[in-house]
Amino acid sequence: MKIDDVIQTSLLYDFYGSLLTDRQREVMELYYGENLSLSEIAAEFSISRQGVHDALKNAGRALHEYEQKLGLVDKFQQSREAIGDIDERIEGLMEDVQKQEALVPAEVTAELQKIKDIIDKLEE
Amino acid sequence: MKIDDVIQTSLLYDFYGSLLTDRQREVMELYYGENLSLSEIAAEFSISRQGVHDALKNAGRALHEYEQKLGLVDKFQQSREAIGDIDERIEGLMEDVQKQEALVPAEVTAELQKIKDIIDKLEE
Repeated sequence: MKIDDVIQTSLLYDFYGSLLTDRQREVMELYYGENLSLSEIAAEFSISRQGVHDALKNAGRALHEYEQKLGLVDKFQQSREAIGDIDERIEGLMEDVQKQEALVPAEVTAELQKIKDIIDKLEE
Repeated sequence: MKIDDVIQTSLLYDFYGSLLTDRQREVMELYYGENLSLSEIAAEFSISRQGVHDALKNAGRALHEYEQKLGLVDKFQQSREAIGDIDERIEGLMEDVQKQEALVPAEVTAELQKIKDIIDKLEE
């Protein structure tokens, strides 16, 4: 599995994991979260290695189907990118303003800082 | 049904509607979207008024259960509020800057406008 696929699956899991079965969630936590091998997880649950493989595959498929229907991860990522863009621009403005302190009223600096705080909270 | 409940249900439907059955979706569209009465919808599908009532109730319950598990509408609303707050502050800054044009470099004004554009696109 490629690293991008792992990141994408983790993101899908963060969003839709609560819609999976308990067993699917447990297997995904051990595989993606704890980095256990298929054999280790099989031993943990006293099921076959193939059973673990199938559970992971079904869980992954279910997550992708939820995203196909809901598209919320895509929406979230677009929103994050836009907020990151705003964040960079606000930081740039704060630097510019700092260089030209005499020209810019203190209220502007204070207000930019407030906006920055809101963005930081959003990005938590 | 109170107006707040209708708004909340519509929002839940926007997010999770695609996870409902076709029939549940059709009934919700007619009831909330087209404002048809239970009797009118019953006639449309040749089912009982009680059947429409149950379909709406089950659909509403399913939507609330998705939100309880996923909490994405709540997350989305919080994010919208924060972005609305940033929007107001940027607009305030743009007004301040306009009043004191001589004091503020043109680049700052241009950059504020760019941020405003990104926010407007986010809020679409």
